[in-house]
Amino acid sequence: MLVNITPEEAQQQILNHSRLLSEEQLPLLEAANRISSREIIADTNLPPYAQSAVDGYALAEKPANGKDTYWLNGYLKANDNTLVPIQEGQAVGVFTGGNIPLETWAVVPHERTITNNNHMQVTEIIKAGNNIKKVGEDYAQGDQLVARASLLTPAHLSLLAAYGQKNVVVYRKPQIAVLSLSGNVVPVDMIPAPGQIRDSNGPLLGALIQKDGGTVVSMQTSFGKTRLELKRWALSILDQIDVMVVIGGTYAATDNEARLLMEEIGAKILYWGVDIQPGSHTGASLLDSRLIIGLSGNPAACAVGYQLFVAPALRAMQGLSPYPKYLTAICSNGFPKKTGSRRFVRGQADWNENGLQVTVLPGQKPSMIRSLFNCNALIDLPAGSPPVEAGSNVSILWLDSTF
Amino acid sequence: MLVNITPEEAQQQILNHSRLLSEEQLPLLEAANRISSREIIADTNLPPYAQSAVDGYALAEKPANGKDTYWLNGYLKANDNTLVPIQEGQAVGVFTGGNIPLETWAVVPHERTITNNNHMQVTEIIKAGNNIKKVGEDYAQGDQLVARASLLTPAHLSLLAAYGQKNVVVYRKPQIAVLSLSGNVVPVDMIPAPGQIRDSNGPLLGALIQKDGGTVVSMQTSFGKTRLELKRWALSILDQIDVMVVIGGTYAATDNEARLLMEEIGAKILYWGVDIQPGSHTGASLLDSRLIIGLSGNPAACAVGYQLFVAPALRAMQGLSPYPKYLTAICSNGFPKKTGSRRFVRGQADWNENGLQVTVLPGQKPSMIRSLFNCNALIDLPAGSPPVEAGSNVSILWLDSTF
Repeated sequence: MLVNITPEEAQQQILNHSRLLSEEQLPLLEAANRISSREIIADTNLPPYAQSAVDGYALAEKPANGKDTYWLNGYLKANDNTLVPIQEGQAVGVFTGGNIPLETWAVVPHERTITNNNHMQVTEIIKAGNNIKKVGEDYAQGDQLVARASLLTPAHLSLLAAYGQKNVVVYRKPQIAVLSLSGNVVPVDMIPAPGQIRDSNGPLLGALIQKDGGTVVSMQTSFGKTRLELKRWALSILDQIDVMVVIGGTYAATDNEARLLMEEIGAKILYWGVDIQPGSHTGASLLDSRLIIGLSGNPAACAVGYQLFVAPALRAMQGLSPYPKYLTAICSNGFPKKTGSRRFVRGQADWNENGLQVTVLPGQKPSMIRSLFNCNALIDLPAGSPPVEAGSNVSILWLDSTF
Repeated sequence: MLVNITPEEAQQQILNHSRLLSEEQLPLLEAANRISSREIIADTNLPPYAQSAVDGYALAEKPANGKDTYWLNGYLKANDNTLVPIQEGQAVGVFTGGNIPLETWAVVPHERTITNNNHMQVTEIIKAGNNIKKVGEDYAQGDQLVARASLLTPAHLSLLAAYGQKNVVVYRKPQIAVLSLSGNVVPVDMIPAPGQIRDSNGPLLGALIQKDGGTVVSMQTSFGKTRLELKRWALSILDQIDVMVVIGGTYAATDNEARLLMEEIGAKILYWGVDIQPGSHTGASLLDSRLIIGLSGNPAACAVGYQLFVAPALRAMQGLSPYPKYLTAICSNGFPKKTGSRRFVRGQADWNENGLQVTVLPGQKPSMIRSLFNCNALIDLPAGSPPVEAGSNVSILWLDSTF
C-alpha cells in the first residue's frame, strides 16, 4: 500500500519545478491582464509642467493694493511659449490641462470673472495656487509606477501611456497541453455508448487555463489512439509547452495509464497519490524540465486538482504568489457526511453583514459537474472530520472567481 | 445657463438606444467569458446510462440466504454489451465511469473484496444502489443547462461538452471606436510640450472596453488632424462600430469640439451636461442608430463617465443587466470636502467581519490618474453633502473589478 502525501507536499513538489517564464514586450492594450516582469519607475514628474485645472484665467500675484481687476493679456494655446513670466496686474486666458505662464499665482475659472474689453474682474475669493495642477502632483520623478509581478490593470496601462510607454514587458504566457487519457472518454462530437462519457474536462481545464493566463497549445483525447501514438504526441509537443496536464487514466485497480505514459516517455515521477477526496489517484512527473501533472478524471476531482496543483504552477511561472488564499467562513447549510480522507467540498462563498458565509453546493459526487456552478470556494475538511453542522466555522480556499 | 440632467436620466437615454447585438456561433473555448444568447435545455439525461462510481464489482441482488459470496463472471470494458442483465449470485468487474450490467443491484469497490479464483467475497456492508451513478443524477432531460444571457464560465463549457456541443451561440462583441479630441492631447509616443499631455485615456478606455466584452476597432487622437479629417474618420468608421466614445473637447468656455463634431456629422444630440463631479461637461448623440458618447477628458472624469455611461451600454448590448450595483458601506477614512454637484469619489471597498468598508483613495483631483489604482467602487455623494466623517455610511457603486 502506497502512502499518500498531503496536497501541500504535492504542491511544493510542483512549485519546485515551476520556473519563472521569460519576458516578452507587448503593446499596451495587448498587455491588459498580463503580469509585468519589471518594476517601472517614473523618469519625470506628472504633470511635467504646471497646468491649469479649469478653463479660466491665470493671474499674477495679487497686487499690494488688493485690487481684483486685471488687464487681460490674451489666451494661451498649446505650444505657446509659457516660459515668459506673467506680469504684475495681468491675467492670461488658459484652458483645462493647458499650460500657464511662469510665476502664475493662481487660476480663476471663467465663470467667476466679469470681463469688459481687456479688463477682467474676479468675483470669487482666490487663494495662492488655486486651480493650478502642480508639477508632479499626480506622480513625482522616482515614484513606482508599476511593481514587478503586477497584474496590469486599465489604470496601469493609462499611467504607462501618460509616461510615453507604448509597450510594456511582461512574462510570456505559460503554454499548456491537455490530454484526456481515460479509456471511456470520447471526443465531444461523438455519441457515447453505454459506459462512455464525452470529454467535459478538456473544455473545463482549457477555460480555466485561459483565465489563469495560460495558452492551450493542444487538447487531445486518447480515444482511437494507440499507446505509441500517444507517446509520439507527448514527445512531439514537449518543446512547445511548459506544462502538460494528463486527465484520468489513473485507476487504482488496473493499469495506471497516466503513470505508465509518463514513465514510458522517460519522465521522472515526482509523487503519486495525494491524501484528498476527490482525486487521490493523481501524480506529477518531470521530463526535460517540463512538468507533467496528472489529474483524476472525475469532473469534480479534475476541477479540484486543477486549483490545488495546476493553477499554483501557472501563477508561479508568471511571477505571482502561487498559494491559494485561505479564509474562515460560516457554513450556512452544513455537510452531512463524515470525512475519511481530507475532503475538498465545492461551495459558494459570499460576504454579508454577518461576515463570510459559505454554502455547500448541490451535486457533490465526484462524477458530477453540477457542483462546479457558482463554486468560488473549496471547503477544506480535515481527514476524520465529523459531519459539518450548519452555522459552524470551516476553512475555505477562496478562488478568485467561480469555476 | 443649461440645466444639467441627472446621471440616471443620461443613462436611460443611452440605454434607450443600446440595442441587443446579433448572435454568432463560437467553438467552446473561444466562448469563455462571452454571453450566451440562448437558453440551452438538456436533451438527454446525464449520465445517459447507469455507471459505476468506483473501480470494483457490479453485484446481483443479494441472494435470499444473505450470502456475500459471488461468482466472478469476468470484467466489463467500454463497448461491451451491458443490455444483458446480471444473473443471481454473479459479480462482474467494472471501472469508474464505466458501464454496468442491467439490473445491477450495487457496486462494491475492489478494495472491499477478497477474490479467490472465480469466487469473490464482499467484506463491507453494501446497500442497494451503492456506488452506482444513476441515470440523470447530474442533469435530467429537460433541465436548464445554460440560461439566456449567462456569462459563460468554465463550468458551462464543461457541461456543454458533456452534452456534445462543440459550439455555442453568443452575442457578438460590441465594436467600439475611441477618439481623444482634446486639443492639448498628443499621442503616447510624443514628448508633450508645456500645456500638452499624452493620451492616457485611450489605453484606459481600451482596456476597460475589452474587460467588458467589447472590441476596440479604432483608437485615435485628434492631434495633427484637421476637423475635416476627423469628420471623415468618424463617418468612415461608423459602419464597423456600435458605439463611438469621444473623450475631451468638451470645454465650457470655448468651442465645444465634441458636440460640434457630433452635430457636423449629422448626429442628433440626446443630452448635454450631466449633474456630476467630475465630468459634468458630457453628452451623447445618435447617428444612424449608433451611439456616440462624449466623456470629459480629465482622467478621473473619463473613468467615472465610462462606468456611468459606456459600461451600461456594453452590458445592455450583450443582454446583461445594465445597471451598476449599489451597496451601503462604512467610509473608513472620510472625505474632507463639501459637495456642490453630486460627486463620485473613487474608493476601495472590501468586506471584512465588520461589514462592507470603503476607503477614499488618494489623488481625488479629476486631473489625476492616481485615484484609479485599487479603485473598485465609486462613492456616490449627493449634491450639497457636508464633508463625510470617518465611520459614516455612504452609498457606493460596486464595480466588478478594479480600474
